[in-house]
Amino acid sequence: MSKKYIYFFGNGKAEGNAGMRAILGGKGANLAEMSNLGLPVPPGFTIGADVCKAYYDNKNKYPAGLAAEMAKHLAALEETIQAGLGDTTNPLLVSVRSGAAASMPGMMDTVLNLGLNSKTLAALVSKTGNERFAWDAYRRFISMFGDVVMGIHRDKFEHEIETIKKKARVKNDTDLTVKHLQDLVERFKQIYKKDTGEAFVEDPKVQMQKAVNAVFDSWNNPRAIKYRELYNIKGLLGTAVTVQAMVFGNMGNHSATGVCFTRNPSTGENKFYGEFLINAQGEDVVAGIRTPEPISNLKKVMPHLYDELIQYKNLLEKRYKDMQDIEFTIQEDRLYMLQTRNGKRTAKAALKIAADLVNEGVIDKKTAIMRIDPDQLDQILHPVFDPKAKKVVIAYGLPASPGAATGKVVFSAEEAEKLAARDEKVILVRKETSPEDVAGMHAAQGILTSRGGMTSHAAVVARGMGRCCIVGASDVNVDYKTQRFSVNGKTVRHGDYISLDGTLGEVMRGQVPTIEPKLSGEFDTLMEWADKFRKLEVRANADTPKDAAKARSFGAQGIGLCRTEHMFFGENRIDYVRQVIMLAPEVKNLKATIAAHEADLERAGKDLRIELKKEIAEAKEALKFPRKMYQQALNKLLPMQRGDFEKMFKVMKGLPVTIRLLDPPLHEFLPHDDKTRREMAHKVGMSLSEIIAAGTRLEELNPMLGHRGCRLGITYPDIYDMQVRAIIEAACNVKKKGIGIYPEIMIPLACTAAEVKLLKDNLHRMAGEVMKKKGVKVKYLVGTMIELPRAALMADKIAEQAEFFSFGTNDLTQMTFGFSRDDVANFLLDYIEQGILEKDPFQSLDQDGVGQLVEIGVKKGRSVKPRLKIGICGEHGGDPASIEFCHKVGMNYVSCSPYRVPIARLTAAKANIQGAEASSTA
Amino acid sequence: MSKKYIYFFGNGKAEGNAGMRAILGGKGANLAEMSNLGLPVPPGFTIGADVCKAYYDNKNKYPAGLAAEMAKHLAALEETIQAGLGDTTNPLLVSVRSGAAASMPGMMDTVLNLGLNSKTLAALVSKTGNERFAWDAYRRFISMFGDVVMGIHRDKFEHEIETIKKKARVKNDTDLTVKHLQDLVERFKQIYKKDTGEAFVEDPKVQMQKAVNAVFDSWNNPRAIKYRELYNIKGLLGTAVTVQAMVFGNMGNHSATGVCFTRNPSTGENKFYGEFLINAQGEDVVAGIRTPEPISNLKKVMPHLYDELIQYKNLLEKRYKDMQDIEFTIQEDRLYMLQTRNGKRTAKAALKIAADLVNEGVIDKKTAIMRIDPDQLDQILHPVFDPKAKKVVIAYGLPASPGAATGKVVFSAEEAEKLAARDEKVILVRKETSPEDVAGMHAAQGILTSRGGMTSHAAVVARGMGRCCIVGASDVNVDYKTQRFSVNGKTVRHGDYISLDGTLGEVMRGQVPTIEPKLSGEFDTLMEWADKFRKLEVRANADTPKDAAKARSFGAQGIGLCRTEHMFFGENRIDYVRQVIMLAPEVKNLKATIAAHEADLERAGKDLRIELKKEIAEAKEALKFPRKMYQQALNKLLPMQRGDFEKMFKVMKGLPVTIRLLDPPLHEFLPHDDKTRREMAHKVGMSLSEIIAAGTRLEELNPMLGHRGCRLGITYPDIYDMQVRAIIEAACNVKKKGIGIYPEIMIPLACTAAEVKLLKDNLHRMAGEVMKKKGVKVKYLVGTMIELPRAALMADKIAEQAEFFSFGTNDLTQMTFGFSRDDVANFLLDYIEQGILEKDPFQSLDQDGVGQLVEIGVKKGRSVKPRLKIGICGEHGGDPASIEFCHKVGMNYVSCSPYRVPIARLTAAKANIQGAEASSTA
Repeated sequence: MSKKYIYFFGNGKAEGNAGMRAILGGKGANLAEMSNLGLPVPPGFTIGADVCKAYYDNKNKYPAGLAAEMAKHLAALEETIQAGLGDTTNPLLVSVRSGAAASMPGMMDTVLNLGLNSKTLAALVSKTGNERFAWDAYRRFISMFGDVVMGIHRDKFEHEIETIKKKARVKNDTDLTVKHLQDLVERFKQIYKKDTGEAFVEDPKVQMQKAVNAVFDSWNNPRAIKYRELYNIKGLLGTAVTVQAMVFGNMGNHSATGVCFTRNPSTGENKFYGEFLINAQGEDVVAGIRTPEPISNLKKVMPHLYDELIQYKNLLEKRYKDMQDIEFTIQEDRLYMLQTRNGKRTAKAALKIAADLVNEGVIDKKTAIMRIDPDQLDQILHPVFDPKAKKVVIAYGLPASPGAATGKVVFSAEEAEKLAARDEKVILVRKETSPEDVAGMHAAQGILTSRGGMTSHAAVVARGMGRCCIVGASDVNVDYKTQRFSVNGKTVRHGDYISLDGTLGEVMRGQVPTIEPKLSGEFDTLMEWADKFRKLEVRANADTPKDAAKARSFGAQGIGLCRTEHMFFGENRIDYVRQVIMLAPEVKNLKATIAAHEADLERAGKDLRIELKKEIAEAKEALKFPRKMYQQALNKLLPMQRGDFEKMFKVMKGLPVTIRLLDPPLHEFLPHDDKTRREMAHKVGMSLSEIIAAGTRLEELNPMLGHRGCRLGITYPDIYDMQVRAIIEAACNVKKKGIGIYPEIMIPLACTAAEVKLLKDNLHRMAGEVMKKKGVKVKYLVGTMIELPRAALMADKIAEQAEFFSFGTNDLTQMTFGFSRDDVANFLLDYIEQGILEKDPFQSLDQDGVGQLVEIGVKKGRSVKPRLKIGICGEHGGDPASIEFCHKVGMNYVSCSPYRVPIARLTAAKANIQGAEASSTA
Repeated sequence: MSKKYIYFFGNGKAEGNAGMRAILGGKGANLAEMSNLGLPVPPGFTIGADVCKAYYDNKNKYPAGLAAEMAKHLAALEETIQAGLGDTTNPLLVSVRSGAAASMPGMMDTVLNLGLNSKTLAALVSKTGNERFAWDAYRRFISMFGDVVMGIHRDKFEHEIETIKKKARVKNDTDLTVKHLQDLVERFKQIYKKDTGEAFVEDPKVQMQKAVNAVFDSWNNPRAIKYRELYNIKGLLGTAVTVQAMVFGNMGNHSATGVCFTRNPSTGENKFYGEFLINAQGEDVVAGIRTPEPISNLKKVMPHLYDELIQYKNLLEKRYKDMQDIEFTIQEDRLYMLQTRNGKRTAKAALKIAADLVNEGVIDKKTAIMRIDPDQLDQILHPVFDPKAKKVVIAYGLPASPGAATGKVVFSAEEAEKLAARDEKVILVRKETSPEDVAGMHAAQGILTSRGGMTSHAAVVARGMGRCCIVGASDVNVDYKTQRFSVNGKTVRHGDYISLDGTLGEVMRGQVPTIEPKLSGEFDTLMEWADKFRKLEVRANADTPKDAAKARSFGAQGIGLCRTEHMFFGENRIDYVRQVIMLAPEVKNLKATIAAHEADLERAGKDLRIELKKEIAEAKEALKFPRKMYQQALNKLLPMQRGDFEKMFKVMKGLPVTIRLLDPPLHEFLPHDDKTRREMAHKVGMSLSEIIAAGTRLEELNPMLGHRGCRLGITYPDIYDMQVRAIIEAACNVKKKGIGIYPEIMIPLACTAAEVKLLKDNLHRMAGEVMKKKGVKVKYLVGTMIELPRAALMADKIAEQAEFFSFGTNDLTQMTFGFSRDDVANFLLDYIEQGILEKDPFQSLDQDGVGQLVEIGVKKGRSVKPRLKIGICGEHGGDPASIEFCHKVGMNYVSCSPYRVPIARLTAAKANIQGAEASSTA
């Protein structure tokens, strides 16, 4: 038996049903379902999406047998509706529509009124007795067919309509007379012939075949491909094609067409919502050519049909247990249902509808939670552009951190701070950002960079701050010297206004107005429900008390990552940090010399002893000044860091705070201009050239793989000692005030258990000293980041030394792929376009590859300590797919930027519900 | 029962034996063994190395019960020899010697003649009737005890001897009279008192205890620690201490002492070899104070003792089945055996002795192979410094590539080439090297860099070329401007001679003379035997026909890695390479624009069509010049690369040649000075600023993790297409001449199966075209490097696309550790010194961590293709421990630099023999 390709529906029954989306597409499946429910659906048939796949797999050829099957179904349709395609007395008109399993609105093609030609037109006129209707249908068909099937630009047809309306001095299409429409048909046919070189297709069967071809072709038109890429729609077979008998809303004043929602898709309110047009086809509603009336008015003009519609919409909502988006047509006082689907809605509406449906007893809480798209929550957590505002997009970049920002362009962090201090709103535009820019980024409304990927410095910091940010806008050519950037031939100067849409990655000219979000009661309700269903704890990445407070207000259960280095850039601090960095190597070397000589001394004879003692004295003399300056700088930093931690502990009282010891390469902290260098030289008693030389020595070819993380703690123990002292002193001080503190100290970038042991031992020693001195005991944990492949592979050994693991999946992704997140933009787009990678692995965890290392790390860690606390603090901690993964591998918590905490709470609940369902059905 | 700590030997029997090295040390175990063999060994006892461990573990305290056990054994010794320690009529004198399980010559301490004081001296005089001997022993004991136990510098004692000799006008110590010696003793005691603040120790038991302490302390003296670090001696308990009755070679003309080898340790010749001194103690032979006589002379002076010695040396060689290094003493016509051990030997001798022992039927071939230290082979493969030459070491660095080089200092690659062209020998001194320096490196005798680790660019390239190289000599401050370098206060100028010892990492002033190595017949014999026993194939990394020929002469069975980029730097080529690089992005962008417009065109209406056509025409116009220049450059490179490959194929006829497609980041090829940039600008029709801007665009923050490897092949397919064409054209051309060619094309830096599939498909298409055109079919393989953690983790998927794997363990190590090999020097030393890492993971594969990924890669690859060919082409392919690992995990081949091919052949054999033994005993 040959494979079935086509599925019939009509007469209150169907070969398909709502469960067959993959084959029938959403539209086809729901038409079948409505037929089965006994709703008045015009009959038709759906060609499965597997035909589309076969068509592309087989070089645009259809599978054998399809033509015969189509003929059979067409005959059945003709039989059902008692009309014939091309029949010159009782002609059948059909629509040919695309429809994939995932919604791709407006992306693919549709042809209406198919079946008309000069002969069937005449029959239609005589059959309906409505000449105007027939000619109107004909002109619509020609233009639509010309546009969709033959690729003639629709402007050309529109232009003719406008011309004729002007000539006739009428405002609406409906005011055109039969004569006008006949003229239009003539003009359209001319356009058709001129553009395609052939006369308009007369044979309805050829029309149908061409239309079906066009729909299948539209699956891979650039718009559609782009759309799927953008919305990450993967794994579909293709589009289905539904051929359905036409019904007409434009057969006079007893006809109408409308679109409605069972509830308000914008607010979620449980109120029938929608609009309709008398004497119009559906496309008129969608196209906005005429202004439709609110659905409530239908009650006045066609009360019994309105009641019928209400009955159907209630039936559909009950059947689908969700808000429905419904299309209907009324043809001469008869209601036809053309489409139903789960309605798109705003995040706000999604929350309200879900909560209401629970309260109405339609769905349970779990289902409600499963209904909310975590990514969509972003919408309500950040300010957004007024959707009604006009916008001129001048460039696109990667949407690194959502939100809407407007401000004056500045090109340096200092200037951002300066202007912000005067209450000016600024957008910081940089080629890329570095830690020196953090204060300026904080001062700015938004950040735009021409380089970098989704986890570049700019992206990560901005997300953490909740600042709107677009990165890697490679068309933007920044010129710091002239203080302007050029983009596609246009120039934007310092002080010009631009607006950034961090959700879409759009850079717009001028000030686009924004609206502030308000969190509804339903938001809190849903979040509470989510908290009940999740197992994963949700923490936040926060480096300042302000961010910590924000995170807490969003429901964070602790800080999963507090990056101490961000504290180093504060005012009055960076100088001391630099002082430490510049002097540390010198102090270290001199100390080593002294130690080596002193060791020799013990075994040396008298003469040698004299020599050695002289050298030791010299080294000690040479050490005096730098050590003094070095110790002085450390002493200055200690109370500052302690103060930072005290504030963090107070904000997070009762909740754990995970503090990562210094991580980035020291070079990042040094000044890069001679003026600052000179100031520093003066301070630390070195010459400018020595300062430059010291900086050069710290430069690395691959800083990401260089002297950073705990390697700094190993080579320069004083810095970590100072940090640990600050943490434990702060903890003691805050505890004395009766506030609960749970510091968790985290060692970054370990690749061996030995590093962790060595640093942990030092840390305990220092903490012990502090607690003894303070007379206070605080409980604290010492853990490590797992962010190098080797750390994951050696996790059993490392677990022996660590009280918790936190996966740093940013670095882990870098090392596993060998991708520098700062440089990946050079080829990532090619990789995604050519299908090598599905998505940016810095945005969503690469579960196939990097995920293996995470699993190995979790398993090996727990093989040694079965109850080892394990979390994630990479950027992936805020990505729903990655959070799901973290849940699956059995982590204890995820930590993400404050603004993503609700998203993580929700996703964690969904993952747990899904997991439970999967295991209960397994 | 308490633990046994001390082991007695003497009277033809012993409590220990040769198998107890771990506890007794090499010396103690062999003394026990000789006793058991019935050889005349002075009796004594050995305190086990476990005591040393306990001593250190327990803060320099001995285990309980040791004192009693020592007293018991001392009593037994006194009983055996019928003399008493401190006995004033028949005093026992003993030696106290260190001795660990691994030989650490001269690193730890020994005290002789212990037991003497003013009273026992008198007894010794009366007992021996030899006043001179007794006083001589006494003065020796005081100075040795003062030096070893009390830390008085031995120069002070030597100075007194010289003074007294001068005063007495005698040349030799033996010419000193009793009076002189008595004076000396007096002076020595004064020195002792002055330096230590106390009188010389009289109590022999205290002497003994202090001496034992000193030996245990010497285990952790800085010299010893350094030595163990240097020779990677790990896992020992500590040193044993042997207390043994003294015998005296200095009791007159019927006494003597000597050191001998059962065969010649320098040539391997089977001829008794050694030297002796009449009337002397062993230290005199070793110290070289008097000139000893050849051992053959002993036959003349003491023929019966000579015969006895011959009998013993034969017995010992038979027992140990290896060449022995023997110490003996003759006391008043009686021969005593003091030590035997497997003799150290040169690589040349090692080969000859192993081969001879096989021919003599003493050992089998497997044993012979197991006897050769692969690392030692390096000695005979490179020129070496004349060991007799004087050398002034001015700096140390990492011994990156072995060999001995002498030449004038130059600071640029160009100058190295220029001077070399005039037949001058030069040493290229750089902070670090880049691919631009390759020709200069080749022209130089040796390379010295102040930065970089064992696998920095300089190190890798130099090893590949067999050029002597020292890297990371951080004391060397290179100043390009003044053309000099300073090192520890000294200055070396351009044109000054220096010498590099690439085996030791020594930088020496002036021209140190070298000697050329000759490979013996035994070398070939052993290599042939090794080839029979090994399973691993050995290939070489070679980029030039010259290197390939060298590799072949050393027995390489193919090329495992031919880096095409090294070919790019040849004369007349780099310009074209740069032309391609500069223009590729522009050509790509314009082509993309045209393609996009052309796609739009198909569906556009007439008006839009006109617009698009205009834009397409403009883009095509703009594309003309750059495309021409781009294509021209590719066309120029094609025949050059083809020529390279033809030569490689001819040299390697009948053997496989693995060619890696372009790998390094493009930025490496660009000029970094304005002069060259200007020349280039002129050539490619761009402005200087455009050239600079293009270069800046290619710059990356972390080039190692950037746009390189197959990522270049994905984004700029033309470059790989050109390379593939060159390879297959070359293969066709050479095959036409009847020469067997086996090209294996290798895709670098893949992290996904999709990359490999895409590039492989392109490659097959291009190869197909070429072969069709040439009318020749060549068999070739397409494989991939596994050098990213993700590649190893996804090896099952990748194996579906690849015909072979080659592990690039350099990069794999970088990514797995997160260590940049160029920057690792900043902390690696600290890591090794603090015991975090045992050794440089770039030198010897980190089997614990990186090894896991290699194993995963091998297993997953073979899970899909059980017979998948797998090799390694990282630097580790030449490291014996790593080769062993490769054998264990079941690789098919290792590939290493030509000069390490014999080392790899030998190691592969050893690994296989060991594996077979392990599995047969398992």
